[in-house]
Amino acid sequence: MSVQVVNKINDLINKIKDIKAEGKTIALVPTMGCLHDGHKSLMLKAKSLADIVIISVFVNPIQFCPGEDYDKYPRTLDNDMLVAQSAGVSIIFAPSVNEMYPGLQKFSDLTMVVPPYELTDIMCGKSRIGHFDGVETVVSKLFNIVQPDYACFGMKDIQQLFLIKKMVKDLNFPVEIISCPLIREESGLALSSRNKYLSAEAKIKAITISQALFAVRDSFNAGIKDAKKLLDTALAVLDKDIELEYLEFVDKETFKTIENIESNTICAIAARINNVRLIDNVLLEV
Amino acid sequence: MSVQVVNKINDLINKIKDIKAEGKTIALVPTMGCLHDGHKSLMLKAKSLADIVIISVFVNPIQFCPGEDYDKYPRTLDNDMLVAQSAGVSIIFAPSVNEMYPGLQKFSDLTMVVPPYELTDIMCGKSRIGHFDGVETVVSKLFNIVQPDYACFGMKDIQQLFLIKKMVKDLNFPVEIISCPLIREESGLALSSRNKYLSAEAKIKAITISQALFAVRDSFNAGIKDAKKLLDTALAVLDKDIELEYLEFVDKETFKTIENIESNTICAIAARINNVRLIDNVLLEV
Repeated sequence: MSVQVVNKINDLINKIKDIKAEGKTIALVPTMGCLHDGHKSLMLKAKSLADIVIISVFVNPIQFCPGEDYDKYPRTLDNDMLVAQSAGVSIIFAPSVNEMYPGLQKFSDLTMVVPPYELTDIMCGKSRIGHFDGVETVVSKLFNIVQPDYACFGMKDIQQLFLIKKMVKDLNFPVEIISCPLIREESGLALSSRNKYLSAEAKIKAITISQALFAVRDSFNAGIKDAKKLLDTALAVLDKDIELEYLEFVDKETFKTIENIESNTICAIAARINNVRLIDNVLLEV
Repeated sequence: MSVQVVNKINDLINKIKDIKAEGKTIALVPTMGCLHDGHKSLMLKAKSLADIVIISVFVNPIQFCPGEDYDKYPRTLDNDMLVAQSAGVSIIFAPSVNEMYPGLQKFSDLTMVVPPYELTDIMCGKSRIGHFDGVETVVSKLFNIVQPDYACFGMKDIQQLFLIKKMVKDLNFPVEIISCPLIREESGLALSSRNKYLSAEAKIKAITISQALFAVRDSFNAGIKDAKKLLDTALAVLDKDIELEYLEFVDKETFKTIENIESNTICAIAARINNVRLIDNVLLEV
């Protein structure tokens, strides 16, 4: 079976009805397209769980802040179809902005799903004001349209994953969230659609982002528990042309910032190279 | 069949699965209990639409503002069961606060569903800060738990009805919202659980709230279109012991405030008598 591209919500709803009527299970992988092997690993996981895999390919305007890369974010639907096909995806849901937000004049006219302030006033949420409101709103829409049994999210967007899990629990969405491992290049660089923005030279520098995290993990494993010292370890490794946005240590279960690192701590980083914003994280565990 | 009371979310989810497996349709009537003939009319409408009627009876703490009547809000489950039974309801979902918000320390720790600011900075939303966030959040939870085909809401809470309809559209909830008429006593007083707070004397004064609205409608029908003049008409009728919170004219389709009244305008009022807050509304139409 070839992967089908569906653009209209009502068409998708009708297909979902047929799938449900056949008693088949559905796994959803929400994406913004520009699919890479990280996304493919989510789709393969989805395929291992459910009869039917549906992915969404939608560059969601309401999760971009003013001045961010919404307009230039890469749109590569032809290639996305090949990746999806190779992963056994049944349906690509690729709606227009007007299909998802009909007649929208301004974002503030929308009903929004909003995570708790304390959990967004850290890490990516702190610089990307409103970003996670946009994410949770579009994911809620997708859940309501697709009604999946499972939804797969990658651990690269670790704050997003945490907030989506909390949203599902808080709002009782009837879906199981599947956490999927972060996928790296051989070099260690975390796969990201935004890696496309990097020149060869910038990419070599970007590799020091993952190297910094690995150095933190090595130091932690060697017994260093002080956040400040671990930060210094990271800074010593990061290329001098990389602008650090944050390096934070948060508890894996609560996402509260911690100073004295114990096991099950996430060390997360955001940094810019040539104004390309990249994120990465590692788990510190004994 | 006697109406069943279900307290646990998982028990309800299991019953819903059985109902869906039998191919039966579900209509939901969310309530805070203290059921009266207004609620009963919603249940009867629900029963006319679907195979199975489920009502929720839950005094939702997160939709009460500080200083409001959350603690003293009447809880009358025994009588609610009789009303539900008489209306052909199958299941009363009556969860505890801890069942709906497990382990909650403070409201701001929750993922919330939030209507647009412009639509809540008027009428009830203006004085009841955060009220509609609490309403939309609990209704989203109920929709996700019950997965109803229909959900019935009364036109007395006209701003709530408008916002719920917008929420369903904005977030693609797979449910049809049914608007049900406001029900009045013979005297004209709109039925409300909060009427229980009124002494016999206060109730007589409260009747002038509906009389004020009827006077506005009569004036409108007689050709008066100016909001200020219509407000004066209402003020002339309201008992002097009634404290007006607002009397607003909003477009039925957009809920934008209007000055020169045309057809399909809602005239809505909130007022206090002996500190009991009551609301009511009429539709002005040619």
